[in-house]
Amino acid sequence: MSKQPQKDKNFVPSRRSFLQGGLTAAGGAAVAAIGGGAALAAGTPDPAITELKDWNQYSGPGVDAAPYGVPSPFEAHVVRRDVPWLTADPISSINFTPLHELDGIITPNGLCFERHHSGVAEVDPAEHRLMINGLVDKPLVFTMQDLMRFPRENRVYFLECAANSGMEWRGAQLNGCQFTHGMLHNVMYTGVRLRTLLEEAGVKPAGKWILAEGADASGMGRSIPIEKALDDCLVAFKMNGEALRPEQGYPVRLCVPGWEGNMWVKWLRRIEVGDKPWQLREETSKYTDLMPDGRARRFTWAMDVKSVITNPSPQAPITHGRGHTIITGVAWSGHGKIKRVDVSIDGGRNWQHARIDGPSLSRSLHRFYYEFNWDGSPLYLQSRAIDEQGYVQPTKDALRAARGDNSIYHNNGIQTWYLKSNGEAENVEVS
Amino acid sequence: MSKQPQKDKNFVPSRRSFLQGGLTAAGGAAVAAIGGGAALAAGTPDPAITELKDWNQYSGPGVDAAPYGVPSPFEAHVVRRDVPWLTADPISSINFTPLHELDGIITPNGLCFERHHSGVAEVDPAEHRLMINGLVDKPLVFTMQDLMRFPRENRVYFLECAANSGMEWRGAQLNGCQFTHGMLHNVMYTGVRLRTLLEEAGVKPAGKWILAEGADASGMGRSIPIEKALDDCLVAFKMNGEALRPEQGYPVRLCVPGWEGNMWVKWLRRIEVGDKPWQLREETSKYTDLMPDGRARRFTWAMDVKSVITNPSPQAPITHGRGHTIITGVAWSGHGKIKRVDVSIDGGRNWQHARIDGPSLSRSLHRFYYEFNWDGSPLYLQSRAIDEQGYVQPTKDALRAARGDNSIYHNNGIQTWYLKSNGEAENVEVS
Repeated sequence: MSKQPQKDKNFVPSRRSFLQGGLTAAGGAAVAAIGGGAALAAGTPDPAITELKDWNQYSGPGVDAAPYGVPSPFEAHVVRRDVPWLTADPISSINFTPLHELDGIITPNGLCFERHHSGVAEVDPAEHRLMINGLVDKPLVFTMQDLMRFPRENRVYFLECAANSGMEWRGAQLNGCQFTHGMLHNVMYTGVRLRTLLEEAGVKPAGKWILAEGADASGMGRSIPIEKALDDCLVAFKMNGEALRPEQGYPVRLCVPGWEGNMWVKWLRRIEVGDKPWQLREETSKYTDLMPDGRARRFTWAMDVKSVITNPSPQAPITHGRGHTIITGVAWSGHGKIKRVDVSIDGGRNWQHARIDGPSLSRSLHRFYYEFNWDGSPLYLQSRAIDEQGYVQPTKDALRAARGDNSIYHNNGIQTWYLKSNGEAENVEVS
Repeated sequence: MSKQPQKDKNFVPSRRSFLQGGLTAAGGAAVAAIGGGAALAAGTPDPAITELKDWNQYSGPGVDAAPYGVPSPFEAHVVRRDVPWLTADPISSINFTPLHELDGIITPNGLCFERHHSGVAEVDPAEHRLMINGLVDKPLVFTMQDLMRFPRENRVYFLECAANSGMEWRGAQLNGCQFTHGMLHNVMYTGVRLRTLLEEAGVKPAGKWILAEGADASGMGRSIPIEKALDDCLVAFKMNGEALRPEQGYPVRLCVPGWEGNMWVKWLRRIEVGDKPWQLREETSKYTDLMPDGRARRFTWAMDVKSVITNPSPQAPITHGRGHTIITGVAWSGHGKIKRVDVSIDGGRNWQHARIDGPSLSRSLHRFYYEFNWDGSPLYLQSRAIDEQGYVQPTKDALRAARGDNSIYHNNGIQTWYLKSNGEAENVEVS
């Protein structure tokens, strides 16, 4: 694919020139039409004020209208979406977070992507139990009430499916960051350290691995080394303040910070301590990386440093025309905090530092912004994240050189959007 | 009211004794019954495993079931609630955040309390305009798209209604922290600094105050000093990542960090710059503090340091009986971060430091925990917050001594729950 380099003009907007000429001066009929007009002499009441709408001239709905609130009808397009041809059945499938509609770092619970292997388990928390067994001094069974008597902690973590961006290994496929990068969410969890529960049971010296097992019909299970289990894993029962959502493992899930989402077992019912991995389907047939020599990388748990521009993007074109323009996106790393995000508008030839805004937390999404004066030329937009360990997000070509073309999982390559003069964006590759 | 002091035993749980005797050992029929039982010899498969439920033996709902997710049916009781006798009409009324059902520091959008003065305005964002006029060089009108071209920031702020806990001035009235303290939420906002927009318009030297005006039928308006307007005020369009909810001002509201919620004008349609306050209804007849001498304190904007124990509390009794017990709650200050939270179990005679967990952010809720070994005696539970400015949350008696009994607003006094031997809690006062 061709590339038309576009030099960054290093535009720095002055304090009062963000939208010069683009805003409407107040006064008279100006309220109804955007695009210039003389400024009024200051003074009140302003003739335009009478033209500002009262949006409900009489009283609107009261506080009894929605005991549990929902979004505005004008936001009905902001939903998780699946890709029907991607899987045979919605029961064992994926939907995607609408990243291009979000800002900040928190993903609201109703928009967190879903990945199920046999549909959503419907669990009565009063009847649910979590067992710890295997190589422990005292096997234990916890009710939900038991779990809530252990010391809790609150942490914001991203969860990314190992298959996020998986379709993109073989070139630009899906036209929108919701689909290329939307197997991703970022939530504040409340829960108990798995370490605390394991210490209550007493791990025997021979215990080197744990099995985490879900209560859904797929019997989801994964092996996790004991070092990670005793480090930062969280047995979580709240997300963003309230109870876990059913599709996120209600009433209890495992959080494995920084590691692939498949290990964050939902509807968690059992932790078994053992002396070796269990070699389950999801860590042998699936969630391994087929290399060029025909062998497979296994146990590639950590999600490496990655970023994506969410706006503009194919689902979120620029509609304001040329002039002051904000590029924004998210960056994350399974190895800690994000140290820096760079943005290129010329397909990776030149890079500028983006501004990171909002809390910078380990193994959490970071929000970045890059502002420039768009002259309307076609651009190749890219972002590149660097984490606190010094890892730099690679190009897709560098990834393919290392791993070949057979991979599905762990694509953390740089994403390119081709921004056309009309403001539309397309998923492309440059090399 | 009587008080039965109860000395804190300074109980510090050892690493493996949180619930000794309270947990069920795994094995046989133990899964179905809590309350002791011999530990099994470790080993797999464990006989109890077969008794752990598959919660859907066949596949459950797929990823197409709910494009915008909702809570579990088992959480149907977790809702905002109003108090029908409190106001004449739900159109100009209040509902309350269920604080006792939440943890961490984020309030999910569907549970953020509502306060309306003429119901919810229903705004089409494509038609909505925000005007800046008055003592400015160039009056301006912004579309929503215009606003999104200015530099954004992401901040977590609490919003507390000035009337929160207002019924409690005259003694313990409402039986549950949802009702005594639930005019409170804590959200990550994305928006543009009001300062940036004011600089775009150019504030004239005579401009010392702003008027913030809403587009609802009540025409909500408040005067704000220019110093605050140019400091940290935010013109916000997202909450917890997604668009503002209709009842929170969709598509745009003002955030006035640390100051009373009534000033956070929703459905924001106009900012006027003036040389003196406007003396509107909501800052003269309402939201002032009637003092013992018959005069009223005015412009008491900042919300002072405050805290409340959310669990246990009247709506959330202790059901596990005596033994290791977690007390948790939230603390906040309009003057910055919380430095320390103390907990008393004897009505304020003795105080212990609580543990603050999760992000500590300025003008945001802080989550605290205090753990102790409850012997089943009746207790008087209190929390007391201290902020980074050194302000200490006062007793209700100290507040009344300073302000008399006629106030409605700005009650930040220490709350007492009387914990009975059966685990139930009541709203009481001690002195």
